[in-house]
Amino acid sequence: MHQLDSADTSFPDTVSDIKIGYIGGGSHGWAHTLINDLLQCEDLAGHVALYDVDYAAAEQNATLGNDLSAREDAMGDWTFDAYEALEDALEGADFVICSIQDPPEETFVHDIDVPKEYDIYQPVADTCGPGGAVRSLRAIPQYREIAAAVREQCPDAWVLNYTNPMTVCTRALYEEYPDINAIGLCHEVFHIQILLAELAEKYIDEAEDVAGSEIDVNVKGINHFTWIDEATWYGHDVFQYLDDELEVRKPLPSSETGDLEDADYWINHHEIAFDLYDTFGLLGAAGDRHLVEFVPWYLDIDEPAEIQRWGFRLTPSSARVSDSDDGPAKMDTYLADPEEFEFTQSGEEAVDIMRALVGLEALKTNVNHPNVGQIPDLPDGAVVESNVLITGAGVKPITAGELPREIRNMVTTAVHNQETLVEAGFAGDLDLAFEAFLNEPLVTISREDAQDLFAELIEIEREYFDEYDLENAAVLEN
Amino acid sequence: MHQLDSADTSFPDTVSDIKIGYIGGGSHGWAHTLINDLLQCEDLAGHVALYDVDYAAAEQNATLGNDLSAREDAMGDWTFDAYEALEDALEGADFVICSIQDPPEETFVHDIDVPKEYDIYQPVADTCGPGGAVRSLRAIPQYREIAAAVREQCPDAWVLNYTNPMTVCTRALYEEYPDINAIGLCHEVFHIQILLAELAEKYIDEAEDVAGSEIDVNVKGINHFTWIDEATWYGHDVFQYLDDELEVRKPLPSSETGDLEDADYWINHHEIAFDLYDTFGLLGAAGDRHLVEFVPWYLDIDEPAEIQRWGFRLTPSSARVSDSDDGPAKMDTYLADPEEFEFTQSGEEAVDIMRALVGLEALKTNVNHPNVGQIPDLPDGAVVESNVLITGAGVKPITAGELPREIRNMVTTAVHNQETLVEAGFAGDLDLAFEAFLNEPLVTISREDAQDLFAELIEIEREYFDEYDLENAAVLEN
Amino acid sequence: MHQLDSADTSFPDTVSDIKIGYIGGGSHGWAHTLINDLLQCEDLAGHVALYDVDYAAAEQNATLGNDLSAREDAMGDWTFDAYEALEDALEGADFVICSIQDPPEETFVHDIDVPKEYDIYQPVADTCGPGGAVRSLRAIPQYREIAAAVREQCPDAWVLNYTNPMTVCTRALYEEYPDINAIGLCHEVFHIQILLAELAEKYIDEAEDVAGSEIDVNVKGINHFTWIDEATWYGHDVFQYLDDELEVRKPLPSSETGDLEDADYWINHHEIAFDLYDTFGLLGAAGDRHLVEFVPWYLDIDEPAEIQRWGFRLTPSSARVSDSDDGPAKMDTYLADPEEFEFTQSGEEAVDIMRALVGLEALKTNVNHPNVGQIPDLPDGAVVESNVLITGAGVKPITAGELPREIRNMVTTAVHNQETLVEAGFAGDLDLAFEAFLNEPLVTISREDAQDLFAELIEIEREYFDEYDLENAAVLEN
Amino acid sequence: MHQLDSADTSFPDTVSDIKIGYIGGGSHGWAHTLINDLLQCEDLAGHVALYDVDYAAAEQNATLGNDLSAREDAMGDWTFDAYEALEDALEGADFVICSIQDPPEETFVHDIDVPKEYDIYQPVADTCGPGGAVRSLRAIPQYREIAAAVREQCPDAWVLNYTNPMTVCTRALYEEYPDINAIGLCHEVFHIQILLAELAEKYIDEAEDVAGSEIDVNVKGINHFTWIDEATWYGHDVFQYLDDELEVRKPLPSSETGDLEDADYWINHHEIAFDLYDTFGLLGAAGDRHLVEFVPWYLDIDEPAEIQRWGFRLTPSSARVSDSDDGPAKMDTYLADPEEFEFTQSGEEAVDIMRALVGLEALKTNVNHPNVGQIPDLPDGAVVESNVLITGAGVKPITAGELPREIRNMVTTAVHNQETLVEAGFAGDLDLAFEAFLNEPLVTISREDAQDLFAELIEIEREYFDEYDLENAAVLEN
Repeated sequence: MHQLDSADTSFPDTVSDIKIGYIGGGSHGWAHTLINDLLQCEDLAGHVALYDVDYAAAEQNATLGNDLSAREDAMGDWTFDAYEALEDALEGADFVICSIQDPPEETFVHDIDVPKEYDIYQPVADTCGPGGAVRSLRAIPQYREIAAAVREQCPDAWVLNYTNPMTVCTRALYEEYPDINAIGLCHEVFHIQILLAELAEKYIDEAEDVAGSEIDVNVKGINHFTWIDEATWYGHDVFQYLDDELEVRKPLPSSETGDLEDADYWINHHEIAFDLYDTFGLLGAAGDRHLVEFVPWYLDIDEPAEIQRWGFRLTPSSARVSDSDDGPAKMDTYLADPEEFEFTQSGEEAVDIMRALVGLEALKTNVNHPNVGQIPDLPDGAVVESNVLITGAGVKPITAGELPREIRNMVTTAVHNQETLVEAGFAGDLDLAFEAFLNEPLVTISREDAQDLFAELIEIEREYFDEYDLENAAVLEN
Repeated sequence: MHQLDSADTSFPDTVSDIKIGYIGGGSHGWAHTLINDLLQCEDLAGHVALYDVDYAAAEQNATLGNDLSAREDAMGDWTFDAYEALEDALEGADFVICSIQDPPEETFVHDIDVPKEYDIYQPVADTCGPGGAVRSLRAIPQYREIAAAVREQCPDAWVLNYTNPMTVCTRALYEEYPDINAIGLCHEVFHIQILLAELAEKYIDEAEDVAGSEIDVNVKGINHFTWIDEATWYGHDVFQYLDDELEVRKPLPSSETGDLEDADYWINHHEIAFDLYDTFGLLGAAGDRHLVEFVPWYLDIDEPAEIQRWGFRLTPSSARVSDSDDGPAKMDTYLADPEEFEFTQSGEEAVDIMRALVGLEALKTNVNHPNVGQIPDLPDGAVVESNVLITGAGVKPITAGELPREIRNMVTTAVHNQETLVEAGFAGDLDLAFEAFLNEPLVTISREDAQDLFAELIEIEREYFDEYDLENAAVLEN
Repeated sequence: MHQLDSADTSFPDTVSDIKIGYIGGGSHGWAHTLINDLLQCEDLAGHVALYDVDYAAAEQNATLGNDLSAREDAMGDWTFDAYEALEDALEGADFVICSIQDPPEETFVHDIDVPKEYDIYQPVADTCGPGGAVRSLRAIPQYREIAAAVREQCPDAWVLNYTNPMTVCTRALYEEYPDINAIGLCHEVFHIQILLAELAEKYIDEAEDVAGSEIDVNVKGINHFTWIDEATWYGHDVFQYLDDELEVRKPLPSSETGDLEDADYWINHHEIAFDLYDTFGLLGAAGDRHLVEFVPWYLDIDEPAEIQRWGFRLTPSSARVSDSDDGPAKMDTYLADPEEFEFTQSGEEAVDIMRALVGLEALKTNVNHPNVGQIPDLPDGAVVESNVLITGAGVKPITAGELPREIRNMVTTAVHNQETLVEAGFAGDLDLAFEAFLNEPLVTISREDAQDLFAELIEIEREYFDEYDLENAAVLEN
Repeated sequence: MHQLDSADTSFPDTVSDIKIGYIGGGSHGWAHTLINDLLQCEDLAGHVALYDVDYAAAEQNATLGNDLSAREDAMGDWTFDAYEALEDALEGADFVICSIQDPPEETFVHDIDVPKEYDIYQPVADTCGPGGAVRSLRAIPQYREIAAAVREQCPDAWVLNYTNPMTVCTRALYEEYPDINAIGLCHEVFHIQILLAELAEKYIDEAEDVAGSEIDVNVKGINHFTWIDEATWYGHDVFQYLDDELEVRKPLPSSETGDLEDADYWINHHEIAFDLYDTFGLLGAAGDRHLVEFVPWYLDIDEPAEIQRWGFRLTPSSARVSDSDDGPAKMDTYLADPEEFEFTQSGEEAVDIMRALVGLEALKTNVNHPNVGQIPDLPDGAVVESNVLITGAGVKPITAGELPREIRNMVTTAVHNQETLVEAGFAGDLDLAFEAFLNEPLVTISREDAQDLFAELIEIEREYFDEYDLENAAVLEN
């Protein structure tokens, strides 16, 4: 028998001496989540090396981590230190976590606001579209550097990437260091699982208090533009109820322009996901704010409020800037009194993945990984999103099957653009990058305006493009 | 030695007893060209069976053909007859020529004018875009019928298709009857060869009076969206001079809105072809009016006159209607006095192809044929455009190599849509067809408007959709 | 979190009302194992419908099953019945188990003994080689019939096949009914896992009492010719110790001709598996008696005893005949006193797989399944062997990666032959089958002798070839 | 019109100033043929740079070339010089011809005679089998050197290779310098065209005096193991008469052991080609002596004379050694009196190919070229044999379509072995090479004997393996 848990074996119950190198270790978001999750895990222990361009921030997190580790209700046995050099943080690491936002947040403002001047609206601008494209170009040199450091310092480490653009960053790691062990993690699908769990509760008599993680979904596509064609709850087909639910929700869209003016910026009713299901037959498996950036039909609007008809909002660039963030204030509170920090169920999987990789407990989840056959109709080697099985033997993608032709059509467009951006990023070739930029589905403006927009985005963040051959880029000439 | 001509062999000089079945044999355009070309060919002879839904028109052409054949300056020995039944026209044919425009021209008006109401402009509307998509759907049942008749009446005949949408019609022939011998012919590339011949004359010292056919081009893509990456004149590289020529022509576009208000409807300055070359590195190899329908950036205009900046015009639907045509008047003249008909060099290749297929003279040209490896990065079996070698052994595609990634990206989108339309046409499934319709690059309007437009186009030509399941098409519901 | 067990959920603990249709339900081997395993499983219950061409044997097993079910130490709640018609046994089944040996065992004698007359030795002759090829041809019509019955009676059932030739039988099920849910099960890899478990114990300090099932292996290839390129024990690399172990075992082969004259017929020292590892870099993952039938170098012997040098024996055909079997005698004992039947740990997985498929507990194991990307360098759709994840959502192959070129070379030869045999079996075309027969690696005799051998094998079992076109088979003419 | 000849154009009639670098320019065979062909070609002129490891021999050929060029009946205007350095011979060349036999002929003796001691008979031993494998390994370093020199001295030159092993040598050129323009030429298919021309004359009424070159064949496979599935004579299907001819020739084989004891060593009755046609449906398109080396069934003989049953002989190694050659004597005669040299129709195509590549006359023929889609079911990039069209634009393979599965099975085995040998040759890795050696179809001896044979072949020619890592080759240990 080959059951997947190791409960009845002689394998040790605890794995110690783990070293985690954390790039972006000064953050208030992911870093705190990791500290939270590690200190609630009873069978792992070791050291976390925090690296950040903002060394002081990493130091604060190290202090917080050690303070919390000293609390009575903390499990495991973890120490935290800040490092000034990336190399030192990664040296001998078993795991490397990347969660960076660098170049700084101002770039986010440009990525959203400049295209808006050309009537191109983007709710997120971190993955695709004009904003996502230039963000990709900026990220690639950084990820080359990370991959090179991994190759030098910890060639066998598992790299868990949380940074967007997820696909391009993860792909750049493999392009620089093909033998790297890296996966990209994203929780968008988890939200769709929760939606499906609600459907299970609603339509299956015996299903009560169903957790999203109980919904077994077949995931296929690319990050933020992935699709579900099967969903079961312990063998019960949940997918069949989508048609019923769609009838309830119709007509779509269900709101009017301006309806959500007072709503939270991150509100999401899955109406785009359902509309894609209605049109193409599979369920779009990311938040609507991401899904709409991959097709031209929803953001063809005259003013931002119009998109509210579909139940979500355009996040203004102002919401992306740190000073709208209460992180620093909280940090002060925690450092003053570590007991103020509340241990929670984060819902993130990094620690579960580490537990699986050291051999403690097998895990099936969806991650971003180079295509080795899991989605046979997408290009080999492109980073795709599907389920994988994670065990002590590593990460093995699970075959997800082919996509229906017209969904493949849309996904392939994005894959080709991402591959071209990576190629352009490694070659420092902005003319090549512009080919992909033009083929972004949101770029439906004239060829000349598109060139102006691209050039303007590069100009405004010129300092982050020093790895690119700006001198000879024809696209920057007028 | 394996030279390709058969000059010095014992092979007979003339091939007689050829039967040609001509579907659309009542036309004034292609039918007259065929008569003209056959009667100037000295080594072929036989019978032409003209079939047309307008039998009287076919009869007129038969009379004209026989009258011209009797002229002293006519070569070969050809007889012409009109047939009332398709089956009779095809029985035992060696060649079948398809050149039809049925459903009638009014549909062309709708295909152009209805999308215009949704701000979607199309210069041609016979290949892709909203108009091309519904035209495809109407054509598929007709081409199934033709393929079935070929299978019954002349299973080994070579079918030469001239009808648009070229790719979808040819593909439908193979889908219905996989063993058919069919190719699709189009002269768009010839015009690009003439452009390149002019460049050869301009930039190569020893090149004078260069004919377009002397330019050896490597063609790859699909009909009306094909590309050239090599062009030589007897071993001299002509392609290298595109950069020089581009510098001369820049800046592109070179005209202003309204500049061509008085120009011929079919004017073409190849500025789009050059702009695509400038951006993507290969030369677009069709007329600009076709090329712009495959990408969203050029037709993103507010009024028709705006496109004139790029050196061509939007053909109004009125120019598509027969009564703007002087064909009938000419016909009367010819029938009254056959000597009034002037034999000309048509520049078309149907007769050359027939000569090659019977073994008289090998021919290399570009045609549309299912992909059997000639363009290895496009889907197997899709109808693609490339060079082929035509001999007595048949038509063999010549390998053209892969496309650069972002050109492949654009071409693949079109291929997927064409494949989906064929699948939808055979299944009678308008919901599936709508998936392709949405993914047409010109359809950048909202999802809801796109559905309204699709439904409106189907409704207005409902009579031609009796092979489709209109009852259960969700896309037609509101 | 997405742990794979359902321990903490509200999902019901037990699944009842399961119907299992068992084809070959009169056997003394697999049928008794299934009864044994079902009656030790506490969370499944239902009905087993036994079908066999020998109805009386099925009836005996039904009686035995019900008798055992009534024992106090039996778990679950199972009833057993024999059926005279295949259709009735399958009607409404949730699972179908195939474990047949029909045509009768005499064919096995021919498959082994006739090739021996041509100096072709085969230890098993049930998979490939001359014997495996004709066995495949005989099995295909039977498996078409089974697939057709499944399509009619229980189209959504999961079919678990245990019959050899495993690959061809499973492939025939899919060829007849492409939407079938079928997998092929084989325990050969389990034995290799036990070998690796012993290595883990020997070379890893903390590893004690390691069960074979604790070894996580990456399996890729086809049944009886599959390969392992990774083996871990809870994250510890076991594969690295193969080189050390190989040094200990060398020189290979380690025995002499005749050394095993008194040994058990089924003895196996894995020396072929190790020799393949030494030569090609991956570990052959089946018993040596199977592995040698896929390559020409080991069975190139002059007398049967010679193969004993490699630590195994040629099983004589006499060992394949039932009367050497003590099954009937045991059966009498059990029926007389059901308490005589000893419940054991069978080591088989059919019940575990059923538990996984109803949603009780996820299972990772290796099975035979059409290739959907799990081994991307083997042909699509061919039945290949790899790990799969089995859950309530079904069976999903896990990507195993590519094979090294020269191993791919050997495996592909076998795959092509299997595909050709299936095609020949469906077409009834023995000339096509002979093409595959000739390309079997063991067929190194002259073309003329090969034809004689093939014809002789067909002749001697002519009665089982009534689905084949014997009249027009050129290969049968002399 | 796109006819392929340039008769009516303004293109110049003659191309002068051509430089040909000839590697192996001291030979008596190919070099004399080239001189012969060039001096009968009226529209080319230039310089031939002869390079040979035997400089004196190259000098003799230069003298001969210049003497012959001075004859009145010589056309063109050619000069010949010998060079001591490869680099000088290639500098600025338009064409490079490779026709070498180095390491010296003694190696041929070993390649044939050593395997014979292991009961492996090979009629040629220059392509595959044990002899072909080690010959490949010896050739690869030399071809790397040639490719590197081309890259340095004449990167755009067309390289025409005549040396065996044809596939491996050509493949090594591309592996070393991927942008090289190289093709491999072989006349084996021409002989099959002559056979088919005879069939045309026999079975088609109007066909008389048909030249082999008039037979249009569709060629697909690899050099010396290629296949024909279509053959036409000016549109008449010749392939259909193979069945009739086969009936006439049957039974095959038609001779007895020893029947050809007094025949020419190179005699060939195409009985193997016909037997392969009979068994697999396509015509083997090389001499029988080559074809049999790719499969195990014909050379499974006990003594050399046995193969004569199939109408050909095993060439003894003695026939391979120069002193059995009358070349030197002839050379003396020619140098004494150039008029003794008789200009002939060589039947070779190198000069025709050069004429095509400079733009004079298009040519269709079969050559060896990397797979870019011409045979879509063989691996990309492997060197395959098919028709190509050669024009001033270069060499474009013509799509040949897929192979039937069991022929693909045999051809793929050879392709994989060739690819592995090239990889091993570039890596200097004899253990990897041995993997391919074992998988040669003629290697049906025991694994241990195969290793001994391989080691013996390497040892006996150790001096030619200095690019290989002999120290660490496990296969050479005992």
